[in-house]
Amino acid sequence: MKSAADRAKFMEKIVSLAKRRGFIFQSSEIYGGLNGCWDYGPMGVEMLNNLKQQWWRTMTYRDDVEGLDAAILMHPRVWEASGHVENFTDPMVDCRQCKTRYRVDTLFEELSVKKKKEVLRELEPGRFEGQQKDEIVEAEFEKRVNHAERILPLLACPNCGNKGTFTDARTFNLMFKTFVGPVEDSSAVVFLRPETAQGIFVNFLNVQSSSRQKIPFGIAQIGKAFRNEINTKNFLFRTREFEQMEMQFFVRPGTDDHWFEYWRQERMNWFIGLGMRKDRLQWHQHPKKKLAHYAKSAYDIEYHFPFGWGEIEGVHNRTDYDLSRHQEFSKKGLEYFDEESKQKYVPFVIETSAGASRSFMAFLIDAYQEEEAPTAEGGMELRTVLKIHPTLAPMKAAVFPLVNRDGMPEFSRKIEADLRPVVRVFYDESGAVGRRYRRQDEIGTPFCITVDSQTLQDQTVTVRDRDSMRQDRVNAARLRAYLSEHLL
Amino acid sequence: MKSAADRAKFMEKIVSLAKRRGFIFQSSEIYGGLNGCWDYGPMGVEMLNNLKQQWWRTMTYRDDVEGLDAAILMHPRVWEASGHVENFTDPMVDCRQCKTRYRVDTLFEELSVKKKKEVLRELEPGRFEGQQKDEIVEAEFEKRVNHAERILPLLACPNCGNKGTFTDARTFNLMFKTFVGPVEDSSAVVFLRPETAQGIFVNFLNVQSSSRQKIPFGIAQIGKAFRNEINTKNFLFRTREFEQMEMQFFVRPGTDDHWFEYWRQERMNWFIGLGMRKDRLQWHQHPKKKLAHYAKSAYDIEYHFPFGWGEIEGVHNRTDYDLSRHQEFSKKGLEYFDEESKQKYVPFVIETSAGASRSFMAFLIDAYQEEEAPTAEGGMELRTVLKIHPTLAPMKAAVFPLVNRDGMPEFSRKIEADLRPVVRVFYDESGAVGRRYRRQDEIGTPFCITVDSQTLQDQTVTVRDRDSMRQDRVNAARLRAYLSEHLL
Repeated sequence: MKSAADRAKFMEKIVSLAKRRGFIFQSSEIYGGLNGCWDYGPMGVEMLNNLKQQWWRTMTYRDDVEGLDAAILMHPRVWEASGHVENFTDPMVDCRQCKTRYRVDTLFEELSVKKKKEVLRELEPGRFEGQQKDEIVEAEFEKRVNHAERILPLLACPNCGNKGTFTDARTFNLMFKTFVGPVEDSSAVVFLRPETAQGIFVNFLNVQSSSRQKIPFGIAQIGKAFRNEINTKNFLFRTREFEQMEMQFFVRPGTDDHWFEYWRQERMNWFIGLGMRKDRLQWHQHPKKKLAHYAKSAYDIEYHFPFGWGEIEGVHNRTDYDLSRHQEFSKKGLEYFDEESKQKYVPFVIETSAGASRSFMAFLIDAYQEEEAPTAEGGMELRTVLKIHPTLAPMKAAVFPLVNRDGMPEFSRKIEADLRPVVRVFYDESGAVGRRYRRQDEIGTPFCITVDSQTLQDQTVTVRDRDSMRQDRVNAARLRAYLSEHLL
Repeated sequence: MKSAADRAKFMEKIVSLAKRRGFIFQSSEIYGGLNGCWDYGPMGVEMLNNLKQQWWRTMTYRDDVEGLDAAILMHPRVWEASGHVENFTDPMVDCRQCKTRYRVDTLFEELSVKKKKEVLRELEPGRFEGQQKDEIVEAEFEKRVNHAERILPLLACPNCGNKGTFTDARTFNLMFKTFVGPVEDSSAVVFLRPETAQGIFVNFLNVQSSSRQKIPFGIAQIGKAFRNEINTKNFLFRTREFEQMEMQFFVRPGTDDHWFEYWRQERMNWFIGLGMRKDRLQWHQHPKKKLAHYAKSAYDIEYHFPFGWGEIEGVHNRTDYDLSRHQEFSKKGLEYFDEESKQKYVPFVIETSAGASRSFMAFLIDAYQEEEAPTAEGGMELRTVLKIHPTLAPMKAAVFPLVNRDGMPEFSRKIEADLRPVVRVFYDESGAVGRRYRRQDEIGTPFCITVDSQTLQDQTVTVRDRDSMRQDRVNAARLRAYLSEHLL
């Protein structure tokens, strides 16, 4: 998939399958959709739940991590303390001509080296006349990005091509705000949380004292977060409403580097353990100058999406920034007394922050395959199949009667009823068996069980493996055991 | 619990235990809290997840119900079609003197019969001079409630006692609103959904066509909803942020009464099956004149809370109101072609709408017991225990070494590690065993496993049952099997 057109076509296939098979629908679609919001259909919600439950088990079914589910609406002071009111902003400009809106940093980043050189020459005539290496140009341009008011008039709008049409840059806070109570004034403003992390920090003491945990320990949470993004894009990647799976691990200062490495390993292994291809995963280290205001070091786990590498999880050393700030703003002591070292300190925090929605998309894309496969009639056809890890697969098994008579539907229904208490199972009796297989392939069902005429004689059924397409003949009474063995 | 003081004291005990043991914390507590919002602590989130998963399994792991997870933010036209923009309002008044705000209907409802009679006499001098039966007074007052502008000046403020201090009544919409994009004007307004149901209606066609379901079938969803309540009260009962578990069952018109009865049974049985006491459950039928604008009939499942009977789930016949309105407002056909009857129609909807947060509170209160119990020393003590259904219990088992030496902690840790993959297990080695039992009783752990000196000789442990307090001696190798047998 080299060309941009190929990549776009591939994304179209994913979006189309996601809709056709009930993974993802556009939100409020009958009203033309709501930009940046998506709904999970029957297969999508099942897969998302599997993903979240797997994360929850991995992260909280251990001795040193507690769970939490904090409210989306929080006291407004939380966001002053966290720095979001002040810092969670983007400088924006509009093109006066075509009304397109841009984030200034994106606008600058996407300029070619040639254009940057032109800008530098116009800004400081005489200084950049000769030949410069690209790196020099990039570096010199970078030094001047804070002078947007001088650079913007020199640029053309990427959409309409007009030059000098940009408004002044204005900061725009990305938090959604609403009003509590009937009066819509500033004293009633609350925000929809832009991250779940702060719900963990403000509950640090409550969780610690009710669970009697000792440091080091963590608090984990899954929940919705909201960001009023200007440019939503790339399907589930940049949306206004999304779900996070975050864990904050509280440690003694000085041990933070150790735990940072520990959690980096754990988190990368989690994705790999659920079958994500290693060659589509990489670490991206945030360069020092781009670190968030609270961070000592930060690494992202990136997945190679069709549109490029994109973050699916961040592992951050947030230091004692958050707890210290909440201590300062709330006037409540958030220090921890360490019985071992007899010291009192504000713990450091190692954060693992995964996007549930983004991980979902990465797993979906990673599982998508098209391959040549033999048909029942002896020919070949293109098979679309989601080779998704059985733990994540929305349906674990499907049951088909080969034909709709001779007691096959009844026998199939019995199997379905027998399996239902242990696995999510799908019954399908409509259309040719080949079509029914294709349908299950497209939702990634690991096993298809077919009841045929032989079944009625010897109680055996065929079990077809999604990936190898091999068919086993299994006694119906052994199906539960067979599936348990193969699904783990 | 007859007196109001007793009932208030009982609620205090629940709230206190919920905080102490990590079930429920006040949201943003270190900042003084955010009214009407609560956070689920380590035990709370586990129990809430169990509750939601149990509902999900019951409702969607069947042939005729599909799952869904729609976004919280929806297209604003959704709420015009649903009637929420117009009807989801409360008439409110303020007392000019003390600034207290009231819902007009509540203000009227809470008047005594004597006061109502006085009001009637003042409104229409001469007509109500003699003796009237209470029912007559109530009925006559009820006929006049729409004339709030004439009644309000005659009433005293329940808070400060001043008369004639009420402002005119104003309608106040209970939906939280926010703005999408950087411009805060009316064209950018969206609402936080006040119910999850509409996410199901607007996805009716997408779900039906991707799942190829035939009517009758349902769509189920769990998710947050938000209402800008003026008077939040009674712990988790009336909050601004809460979670719903809703299912809309689409049926052929004419079969709606049958399905209404079917789902009434199913839903009541669900609560009873999870151990809720029958004598604390009742049906409340909405009288015809109080039916919502969309409803043909409506029953609430009410639980007997310490503060009185309160709705935990509604079962409603919503007719074809919602789909018809969305068809009208979106101009998209939402009719269904019934292959059996060869008819095209807009399906009727039977809705089962449970509060996850309210059910959680009902299960918590229902499980709470104080009883006399023998102590290890041969005396008696008051034991506080949550006799909660094992399926809902946040922890399924706890493991204690009797003393912290002689290999008991090591053996206990081995048991913990062995059980962890199958059940949520808690390890506790601190304090006297009696105290450790009490702690587990208060979070409702069904089984406590103690490793003692005999264990080291014959590999048996004691397993103590939460409810009967009986102790079984069980071989450690059989623990997994023992727990599976007793937890189901």
